[in-house]
Amino acid sequence: MPVYSAPVDDTLFLLNDVFGFEKYSNLPRFGEATPDLVEAILREGAKFCEEQVQPLNRVGDSQGCTRHEDGSVSTPDGFKAVYHAYSEGGWGGLSIPEELGGQGLPQILTNILNEYLCSANMAFAMYPGLTAGAMAALMMHASEEAQKIYIPKMASGEWTGTMNLTEPHCGTDLGLLRTKAVPNGDGTYKISGTKIFISAGEHDMAENIVHLVLARIEGAPAGTKGISLFLVPKFKVDADGNLGDANGVSCGSIEEKMGIHGNSTCVMNYDSSEGVLVGEEHKGLRAMFTMMNEARLGVGIQGLSQSEVAYQNAVTYARERLQGRSLTGAKAPEKAADPIIVHPDVRRVLMSIRSFNEAARALTIWAGLHGDISHVAEDEAQKQASEDVMALLTPVIKGVLTDKGFDNAVMAQQMYGGHGYIAEWGMEQFVRDARIAMIYEGANGIQALDLVGRKLPANGGRAVQAFFKEVHKFLKEHEESEEFASFMKPLRKGLEDLQAASMWLMQNGMKNPDNAGAASTDYMHLMGLVALGYMWGRIAVTAKAQIKAGANGKAEWLDNKLTLGKFFMERTMPETSAHLARISSGCDTMMSLEADAF
Amino acid sequence: MPVYSAPVDDTLFLLNDVFGFEKYSNLPRFGEATPDLVEAILREGAKFCEEQVQPLNRVGDSQGCTRHEDGSVSTPDGFKAVYHAYSEGGWGGLSIPEELGGQGLPQILTNILNEYLCSANMAFAMYPGLTAGAMAALMMHASEEAQKIYIPKMASGEWTGTMNLTEPHCGTDLGLLRTKAVPNGDGTYKISGTKIFISAGEHDMAENIVHLVLARIEGAPAGTKGISLFLVPKFKVDADGNLGDANGVSCGSIEEKMGIHGNSTCVMNYDSSEGVLVGEEHKGLRAMFTMMNEARLGVGIQGLSQSEVAYQNAVTYARERLQGRSLTGAKAPEKAADPIIVHPDVRRVLMSIRSFNEAARALTIWAGLHGDISHVAEDEAQKQASEDVMALLTPVIKGVLTDKGFDNAVMAQQMYGGHGYIAEWGMEQFVRDARIAMIYEGANGIQALDLVGRKLPANGGRAVQAFFKEVHKFLKEHEESEEFASFMKPLRKGLEDLQAASMWLMQNGMKNPDNAGAASTDYMHLMGLVALGYMWGRIAVTAKAQIKAGANGKAEWLDNKLTLGKFFMERTMPETSAHLARISSGCDTMMSLEADAF
Repeated sequence: MPVYSAPVDDTLFLLNDVFGFEKYSNLPRFGEATPDLVEAILREGAKFCEEQVQPLNRVGDSQGCTRHEDGSVSTPDGFKAVYHAYSEGGWGGLSIPEELGGQGLPQILTNILNEYLCSANMAFAMYPGLTAGAMAALMMHASEEAQKIYIPKMASGEWTGTMNLTEPHCGTDLGLLRTKAVPNGDGTYKISGTKIFISAGEHDMAENIVHLVLARIEGAPAGTKGISLFLVPKFKVDADGNLGDANGVSCGSIEEKMGIHGNSTCVMNYDSSEGVLVGEEHKGLRAMFTMMNEARLGVGIQGLSQSEVAYQNAVTYARERLQGRSLTGAKAPEKAADPIIVHPDVRRVLMSIRSFNEAARALTIWAGLHGDISHVAEDEAQKQASEDVMALLTPVIKGVLTDKGFDNAVMAQQMYGGHGYIAEWGMEQFVRDARIAMIYEGANGIQALDLVGRKLPANGGRAVQAFFKEVHKFLKEHEESEEFASFMKPLRKGLEDLQAASMWLMQNGMKNPDNAGAASTDYMHLMGLVALGYMWGRIAVTAKAQIKAGANGKAEWLDNKLTLGKFFMERTMPETSAHLARISSGCDTMMSLEADAF
Repeated sequence: MPVYSAPVDDTLFLLNDVFGFEKYSNLPRFGEATPDLVEAILREGAKFCEEQVQPLNRVGDSQGCTRHEDGSVSTPDGFKAVYHAYSEGGWGGLSIPEELGGQGLPQILTNILNEYLCSANMAFAMYPGLTAGAMAALMMHASEEAQKIYIPKMASGEWTGTMNLTEPHCGTDLGLLRTKAVPNGDGTYKISGTKIFISAGEHDMAENIVHLVLARIEGAPAGTKGISLFLVPKFKVDADGNLGDANGVSCGSIEEKMGIHGNSTCVMNYDSSEGVLVGEEHKGLRAMFTMMNEARLGVGIQGLSQSEVAYQNAVTYARERLQGRSLTGAKAPEKAADPIIVHPDVRRVLMSIRSFNEAARALTIWAGLHGDISHVAEDEAQKQASEDVMALLTPVIKGVLTDKGFDNAVMAQQMYGGHGYIAEWGMEQFVRDARIAMIYEGANGIQALDLVGRKLPANGGRAVQAFFKEVHKFLKEHEESEEFASFMKPLRKGLEDLQAASMWLMQNGMKNPDNAGAASTDYMHLMGLVALGYMWGRIAVTAKAQIKAGANGKAEWLDNKLTLGKFFMERTMPETSAHLARISSGCDTMMSLEADAF
């Protein structure tokens, strides 16, 4: 059976030591999150994930969800009970304002716990994950009245949420959508249409399901400018939050899919269902994007989560599996063979994964902190700077952490040889589950286009310039020192490659937008590498400082971090030059082939 | 439903035009393979794969194989009938000598058809594929008597074959195996033990199954030097090839696995089963390696096959799926949206896959030709040179074509967005099926070790030096010419990186074998890139020459090849420098972490 142990010590080291969480205690929400409270919450959350959620991961995969003839859906054995335990633990409301029934703590804590929850059981984590995304959209765009009715019930876990965007003929290009909204004259609308790929669309774990549905109001303009967002509950809700009649919402079928079998991916039919507008008419995409931006960071974390749990299992196996002998002579001569962790190629794989995971975790925490700051800072400059970091890094985190998270799950599976291909070991599930994160909430190619087409040029390049400046300043502070040479030289090289690529994009993307499109995915990964390399630089500086200060019994643990970071710099950072070379080759070759010639 | 069209024109261009198949017509076996016959065979085989085998691919995946209480196994609907059609078509005996019931044609034709068969249905292709591997081992090592009994029945498809190596505690390290062989005193042995992961181990398509089983004769030396190979039929066979009693061979269970569901992966129990020795006592590994070397080229072809079929479907989808508009203005203004093939990032993905596929196909054909020459050449120097190419390239083809074949299937799946994750579209099956090829017949890490530990140093580096010399000579001939600059410059750079890596390995791998281990996977991929780049160089030179000669109506087709090759050179070859950087970083960092610290 697969194992999982939440990396709480790593998280605390990053949050407190590397990023100095305490220095934000003057900000709203942060004040109550004392170091002791944060640690207590993370340890308690970790325990819950390890002991209750993780044991349901395999059963969720093998049983999947079942749709019954009446359209109701059963989740796998145990999901309902553990979901109730999750709700009773108050986990869903951790970062929801107190006045809406939550605990009002910073969002970063929910993000961190989300990593643990997804590592333990990604399909399970999606139920509260979608609820959180729906709450975010409602808090930003719904009327105060609607917020008061819906958010407390969702924060408590009594009700869950969904996002309904995709239709059979329309995914990325939402301008094509056909679901109709007809005004009832009383402020409500009749919603009719079919949505596909609706995660957690129907299930047996909550009393009600709050669907956020994109639809076109009769007579609205064509394209994306005629799309509105509606709140459509499974059961109608009165002004006091009491449940009424069924609302014409039904699950038409459950998709048979590659992974995340424990989550019900539904075709949802809306048949004159009553909906209320969220935000303004025809401005539904904007509201949906709020939700998607929160969700994209969360999906990036999913990529990390599968990489982490796959890594942990691969290490366990590599220490136990006896096969062959070390190239430099037997290391366990008393046994029939050495454990495979003696082999450099096995270590190469394991360290590639882990050195990615630790930097990726740092990146999600760093970005998450900026996310919180962007919400609560009172200083406008601080707020804007944090908004810029979040906007710039969201597509990078979503795209790079899910691409690499999947690759890492595949590499971890490889450590098991044939056993990795067999269901009972659980490794192939991590691969199948990780795969979806590259696709949903905007396929990674779309993330790359968002980065080069929107995020880079926004405000005259303010965000990316600030990022370059920050990394450059960090390098200036540390690159003179010989003790950091193995970190700072590769980071400097990476930054130079990224800046050269940015310059190339500026010069050539304006001339021909296809040059930007042709460069986009490589550019996203190049920026991801520099961001991860920067995280390793930050970790190294903190670790060295702590070692110098006596290390408080953690000297070996800190030394190992430095070794891991050095590995990342030696083995992963060299990819930046290949990305730059590809970017600079432009779009001419790929655009010169006729569509028929493919 | 997924589509597949076998790339016969590409194959013929490579076989005849690029590699000059006809110039070998003086060699045994080649003489009869006239251009007309070869084309007729490939077109007929392609048709069979497209029309009969491919339609069973999805049903094979969704039904899988079923083990019944009596230990018998049913294959998916339609498999048995199509397997009989395959056998009646004589496909299994195409490259088997006429005196053993085959058609005596070069092995390369079987290899080529194997690509088509695997693209059409990889799980199905494994049944005859394993039979072919077993025949290869028997022809090399079994007694003439055994060959006469078994080979004709296997060539005709009446009987199939298997390889039995793995046991629960022993995969890569066969020295640990425990299956026992007790001499009966009459030249036969009683074989007892349990083998796992036995592909095509039990099924309902053939009258008998010929198991090749590694076992340890009572009293044999420990380790790999005490392993012998046995032929153990499911039903006993008399000297005339008549079937007798059941032989104590049974399928204990079928593995539940990630993919290739249409193939029965069995736990096989041998309970005092009667076996005959193949080859010499205690030299079973050598015999098994014959089989595995044939098989490894075949598995490399499987990697290519899934990349090819995934590509074909992704292109079809990219031409049909309407979503969004071109960055440079609408290309299909009359439609609701442009087909996604207008987007550079979509083209980037498609051309990455296809430019790999065409070079990989060239590589399997080039290596396959050398394989045939090594078997039939009468000139010793020619024979040895071809043996060297095959020995050197086998691990590269197995490792690189399966790693990249899988990556490509994943990229092709990505083109479908959410639909790629849904079973009915078939894309996720290609990914799951392709995954096994990185694992079986020696996991890819083992291929890399075989390359750097055995193949490079063999005979004082003769094979790799010859390879360098050949590429160097080719470059010398063409790099002066401006028309080939976009091909030759990147190839030259790749060759330099590979030579620098080889030099680094020579200097540092001897000092510390862990340096070789730490470099192995990157070295394998680096060599793969240079080999693929060389293939594109060869294709480009041939294509340009044909264009100059009038192109015979194929000018556009040849031009497109040049564009595709240019793309490979611009976008894929730059990876060589990252591999070199990683290799040169050595093993120190990865070996410095204690096993407990992972």
